[in-house]
Amino acid sequence: MCTASNYITKKHYFGRNFDYEISYNEKVTIAPRNYKFDFKLIDSIDSHYAMIGVAAGVDAYPLYYDACNENGLSIAGLNFAGNAKYLDEKKGMINITPFEFIPYLLGNFSTVTEVKEALKNINLVNINFSDELPLSPLHWMISDESGAIVVEPMEDGLKVYDNPVGVLTNNPPFDKQMFSLNDYRSLSNKNPENTFSDSFDLDEYSRGMGAIGLPGDLSSSSRFAKVAFTRANSYSGDSEEESVSQFFHILGSVEQQNGCTFIADPDLYEYTIYTSCYNTADSVLYYRTYNNSQITAVKLMSEDLDSGDLIHYKLITDEQISFIN
Amino acid sequence: MCTASNYITKKHYFGRNFDYEISYNEKVTIAPRNYKFDFKLIDSIDSHYAMIGVAAGVDAYPLYYDACNENGLSIAGLNFAGNAKYLDEKKGMINITPFEFIPYLLGNFSTVTEVKEALKNINLVNINFSDELPLSPLHWMISDESGAIVVEPMEDGLKVYDNPVGVLTNNPPFDKQMFSLNDYRSLSNKNPENTFSDSFDLDEYSRGMGAIGLPGDLSSSSRFAKVAFTRANSYSGDSEEESVSQFFHILGSVEQQNGCTFIADPDLYEYTIYTSCYNTADSVLYYRTYNNSQITAVKLMSEDLDSGDLIHYKLITDEQISFIN
Amino acid sequence: MCTASNYITKKHYFGRNFDYEISYNEKVTIAPRNYKFDFKLIDSIDSHYAMIGVAAGVDAYPLYYDACNENGLSIAGLNFAGNAKYLDEKKGMINITPFEFIPYLLGNFSTVTEVKEALKNINLVNINFSDELPLSPLHWMISDESGAIVVEPMEDGLKVYDNPVGVLTNNPPFDKQMFSLNDYRSLSNKNPENTFSDSFDLDEYSRGMGAIGLPGDLSSSSRFAKVAFTRANSYSGDSEEESVSQFFHILGSVEQQNGCTFIADPDLYEYTIYTSCYNTADSVLYYRTYNNSQITAVKLMSEDLDSGDLIHYKLITDEQISFIN
Amino acid sequence: MCTASNYITKKHYFGRNFDYEISYNEKVTIAPRNYKFDFKLIDSIDSHYAMIGVAAGVDAYPLYYDACNENGLSIAGLNFAGNAKYLDEKKGMINITPFEFIPYLLGNFSTVTEVKEALKNINLVNINFSDELPLSPLHWMISDESGAIVVEPMEDGLKVYDNPVGVLTNNPPFDKQMFSLNDYRSLSNKNPENTFSDSFDLDEYSRGMGAIGLPGDLSSSSRFAKVAFTRANSYSGDSEEESVSQFFHILGSVEQQNGCTFIADPDLYEYTIYTSCYNTADSVLYYRTYNNSQITAVKLMSEDLDSGDLIHYKLITDEQISFIN
Repeated sequence: MCTASNYITKKHYFGRNFDYEISYNEKVTIAPRNYKFDFKLIDSIDSHYAMIGVAAGVDAYPLYYDACNENGLSIAGLNFAGNAKYLDEKKGMINITPFEFIPYLLGNFSTVTEVKEALKNINLVNINFSDELPLSPLHWMISDESGAIVVEPMEDGLKVYDNPVGVLTNNPPFDKQMFSLNDYRSLSNKNPENTFSDSFDLDEYSRGMGAIGLPGDLSSSSRFAKVAFTRANSYSGDSEEESVSQFFHILGSVEQQNGCTFIADPDLYEYTIYTSCYNTADSVLYYRTYNNSQITAVKLMSEDLDSGDLIHYKLITDEQISFIN
Repeated sequence: MCTASNYITKKHYFGRNFDYEISYNEKVTIAPRNYKFDFKLIDSIDSHYAMIGVAAGVDAYPLYYDACNENGLSIAGLNFAGNAKYLDEKKGMINITPFEFIPYLLGNFSTVTEVKEALKNINLVNINFSDELPLSPLHWMISDESGAIVVEPMEDGLKVYDNPVGVLTNNPPFDKQMFSLNDYRSLSNKNPENTFSDSFDLDEYSRGMGAIGLPGDLSSSSRFAKVAFTRANSYSGDSEEESVSQFFHILGSVEQQNGCTFIADPDLYEYTIYTSCYNTADSVLYYRTYNNSQITAVKLMSEDLDSGDLIHYKLITDEQISFIN
Repeated sequence: MCTASNYITKKHYFGRNFDYEISYNEKVTIAPRNYKFDFKLIDSIDSHYAMIGVAAGVDAYPLYYDACNENGLSIAGLNFAGNAKYLDEKKGMINITPFEFIPYLLGNFSTVTEVKEALKNINLVNINFSDELPLSPLHWMISDESGAIVVEPMEDGLKVYDNPVGVLTNNPPFDKQMFSLNDYRSLSNKNPENTFSDSFDLDEYSRGMGAIGLPGDLSSSSRFAKVAFTRANSYSGDSEEESVSQFFHILGSVEQQNGCTFIADPDLYEYTIYTSCYNTADSVLYYRTYNNSQITAVKLMSEDLDSGDLIHYKLITDEQISFIN
Repeated sequence: MCTASNYITKKHYFGRNFDYEISYNEKVTIAPRNYKFDFKLIDSIDSHYAMIGVAAGVDAYPLYYDACNENGLSIAGLNFAGNAKYLDEKKGMINITPFEFIPYLLGNFSTVTEVKEALKNINLVNINFSDELPLSPLHWMISDESGAIVVEPMEDGLKVYDNPVGVLTNNPPFDKQMFSLNDYRSLSNKNPENTFSDSFDLDEYSRGMGAIGLPGDLSSSSRFAKVAFTRANSYSGDSEEESVSQFFHILGSVEQQNGCTFIADPDLYEYTIYTSCYNTADSVLYYRTYNNSQITAVKLMSEDLDSGDLIHYKLITDEQISFIN
C-alpha cells in the first residue's frame, strides 16, 4: 500500500512511499499555471497555481499520486480499499471526481487552512476517469508548514481530521489508526527502567530496548505505528541535505522490501516503487526508486511556469552507482 | 549496534550496517598481497591474499570492521558487549588479538570451510591495539558462497555456529538469537487465513498481515528477527544491479534512523553510519552512508594487488543528488 | 474494569467478571414479578418478569450490575468511561435512566430480538440515581440463546451492534474492539507450520505456540482479544457442571489478579471482585468471589416469584475450603 | 505443559499447574517417615522425612509430580521435552533415577541449601520405572522459605540455577527463559507516561496499559513471562486464606483452558488438570481440579507420620457447588 509523512526542520518537507506490485510508468509531471485543467462536472480552470508531482504515465491528464504547488501546499493520495466511498452528484456542492481532487486543490489553494474551508462544499463523485481507468479507493493527506490534515471519503461524506502525528498509511480509517497508537504510548527512544519487578534484576542487554513492542511487519496499521515513532523521534540538522536525507530515512523505516508482501504467483510482490520528498518552500521534488538508491531532484522553479503545457520527466529507475576506481 | 547479512543470487553478497553514535572516519582500505601484516604474538605475514574492506581511520594498521578477500571470503565484526571474552595467551594455540582476526583469516584462507578448520587452533588474546585503542567486545559473521558461520569468543573459548539464517546482530549470543526466532515461525509474507475462530469473520483489511508480530524496534534481538524475515523472503532479479539493490533493501529494513536510539544528551543517538555490500565473487565493495544515499563502489581488482602499501579511499559522506533541471 | 461473555452448550450461559478496586457489598438480588419498579420519567411497572442478578448493596432499589430474567434474557453493564454519553430527555422517546435500563429491559422483554426493537425508541437520560450515586459511564452486553448484542450510549444516540464474538470488555467502543481483533486472525489453538522461511528449520519447542501474539496484559482491549480467543476455542462437555466449569475458566482467562493493576497508594489495585454465570434456561445464578474459589448458586425458581418484595442474598466471600483430614 | 511458582507472605507457599491432555488418576499421596523407599541403584531408605504430594495413580510407588516434606522443602517436576538428558551410571556419584529424585531429596533434606550441596554428587540415570512407564523428560523447581532453585539435566550434567523469579514453566532451558524476560523489563502494573512523542497526546483509555506487551498465549515461554509478572506484582493479605487464595490466582493467570491448546483429533486438548498449593510451614496441600473450583485441603500433620504405609486420597474432581436456596 503506501505511507505518507511530513517533516519540519527549517522548512516543510512532505512525501510518500508508493507501494504496489506493478509500476504504471510514473513520471514527474509539472502543470504550469496556464495548463488547462478540464473537470467532469465543473468548469475548466485556465489559470491556477503551478504544481509539480508524480503522476501515472497517462499523457492526456496528470493523474497525480502526490504533488505540491508553488505556494507550498502538498498532498498525497493513498489507497483506502474497502473504506473509500464516492457519492453521487450533489446539488449545491462542488462536485469533483477523485482523480481531479489533487489538481483542484493545488490549483486553487495555498494553505491547509484554505483547503479545510473549501472541503465543506466539496463532494467527491463516483465518475471514472475512463472505462479503462476506474476510480481508486483513496484517502488523502494534505500538508503545509502549519500542519497536516487527512481527508477520508466515507458513506456519509468527507471526513476531515487534523493529523498531529504527521503520517498516513492505509486502512483502517484515520480515527482507528490514531486510537491504536495509544497502545504504544509507553514506547521510547530511551532504554527503559526495570519496572517489571523490584525484586530481581533484568538486563539492559541492548540499546534500543525502549521501543520493544513497536511493530515491524508491513501491514498498514503496523507501518502507521512504526513511521509515527520514527518521525516523532527523528533528529537531524536543518540544512537542506540533512533534512532531505532524514526524510528519506523516515520513510525508509516502512519501506516494503520486494518479496516480503506476497500478492500472487509467480513472484508478484508489493514493494516500494518510489519514494518522493517535496521541499514545499522551494517547490523541489526529490525522489528515489526501488532500484535507484540515488536521490534525483526536479525543481518546479526551473521551468517556465507560465506555459500552458505539461512537462514530463521520466523517473530514473536504474541504479546510479558511483565507481571510484 | 550493527547488523550483518549475506544474500545469494547468481553471486554471493555480504555486508553490514555499521550502527554507532560517532564515526571514526572510516575508510575503504585495501591491503594488497605484499602489505606486511605484523601481529602481536605470531610471526608477520609478508605475503597473503589481497583484501578490501572498511576500516577505522587509523593509518598505521587496517582495523577492519568488515572486509572480503580476493577469493570471496568475507567477514564482519559486530559489537558483542557484555558477552565477548578474550582470554590469556595459550600455549599450543595460534594466539591472535581480536583486531588481527580479520587480517589473519582473510590473508590466509579462501573459504568458510578452511576457516572452520583453522578456528580449532585459534585463541583470541586480550591484548589491546594500543593504550588509546582498547579492544572492542566483538563477535563475527564469516560468509562465502557456501554459507556462513558465527564466531563468538566466550569464557570457555571460541564458539563456532553454522548460520543458516545468514544474518547477525549483537546480543544475546547466537544460540539464544536463533532460539528466539522459533517464536516467529508462523509469520509469513502471505496474508493468513482466519484460524482464530470459525464462528465469526475477521477482516483481511491490509496486505502484509501475515507478518504481524514481527518486531520493528531497533534492539539487537528485534533487528535479528526483522532482518532474518526480510532476507528469507527477499525476491529480486539476479543481475548485479538488482542483487546489490536488494541487498541494501535487506539491511535497510533494520537501519537505525537518527533520533530513534537515544545515547546521551545533547542529541547523541545511534544511527547507521554506513552500510557495506561486498560482491565477493568480483571483490567489489559497495557502500552507502547515512547522508549519502547513492551507492559508491570500489573494486579490489582495479588496484595493483602485488603492491606492499595500503590503499585508502575516504568514504563519500555527502549527499550526491542528481538534479535534472 | 470488567469482562462479559456468553457460552452456549446445550444451554445458554452468560456472565461477567466484575473488576474494581473496592467492593460495594454486592448482593444477589431477586426482583419477583410483583415488585414495583419506579422510574424517574416513565410510569412504574407493577408487574413484570421476575429477575435475578448481582446488585449494589443499596436496599432501596436493585442497582443491577448483571442479571437475567425468568425467560432467559440476560444483560450486564460494563464500565465505558470516557465514551458513554447520556442525553437530555427527548419527547417521543421512552426516557430511561441508565440505572433503570436493566430492570426495564428484563422486566418487559424475553429475547434479544424484542430488545433490539425496543431500543429504537429508548433514550438514556442523564439523571443521577441520587446526589450520592451519580451515573456510571456504561455500555451493555445483552444475550440470549440466539446470540448477543452490545448497546453503547454515544453522543448521537444508542449504538446497537450484533456481537458475533460473544464477549465485551470496556474501551474502546465496540466497533474499534472488533476491528482490532482482525490483527489476531492468524492465531490458532494448533501449533503453526514454519512459514517464516523454507530455507531453515525453526523449532516447535512448546505446545500452544499457535496463539503467540495473543496479549496477556489486563487492559480492556487486551482482555477483549484474550477472552474472545478463549471463548471461541473453548471445548467442554455439555452437562451443567461441565458447562458452568468451562464458563468460569473462560472468564478466568482474563481475571484481574490483585496487585497487577495499580490504582493508588497505598496498595489499592483493581481485581476481579466477583464472577457471575447465569444458566439462563433455568434462571440459576452461579458466582465466585476473589477470595472464595468455590462456586455458589442461587436459583430464581426456588423463590416465590409472585411476591412483591426484593429478596437479597449476601455474597459469600470467605474461602470455603474442604478439609479432607 | 506445566507452571510452578512459589509465593511468600508470612509463610512460604509453593505449587504448580499440572497441564496435560489426559489424567493418570493423580492422588494425594503421603509417605510417612517409615515407608520404605527402594531405589534402583542405591540402598533403600527405611526412615526419612515424611512427605505429602500429588502422585500418579500407581499404587506400588509414589511417583510424585510435586510434593513437600515435613520440614518445609518443596519440589515440582515439570515437562522438559527435547532438552532433558539423563545419563549413564557414573562411578563415585549418587546414581538416582529421575522418578526417585523427589523422594530422595524430600526424604533426606530440609532446605534448598542442603539440596544444592547434595546435587554436586547426584547423577540422574536413564533407567525407566518399568517397561510400561518410561522416563519423562523433566526439570525441577525446588523451593523453601529462603528461595528457589531450578535443576536441569543436560548433556553435560545437572545445571543448577538460582531462581530469583520464583516461577518455572517448560522449554526453553531456564537461562534462556530468564534472558527472554529482559525484553519485558519496561512492563509495569502502573499506567505508563506517554514517551512515544512529546508533540502529540496519546490517550490512557484503560487501566492496566502498563503491561501491554505481556504475552497471553499458552506456550511455555509466554506462560513464564505472564506468571512471573503476576507473581512479582501480587498483592494480598498475609493470612492463610488470603495467601492461599492469591496463590491460586497467580497460577490461575496461566491456566490452560480446555480447547485452547490442540493436541489431537478428536477433541484432545491440553488443560490444567489440577493446581496444587503447599503451605510448606504447616505441610498442608491445597488443590483444585479443572472441574472442581473449590479448594480441597489435606494436612500431612493429621496423619500418623511414623507409619510405614503410604496414605492415598483420591483427588476430588467433581464440582462442589454450594446451593443457597
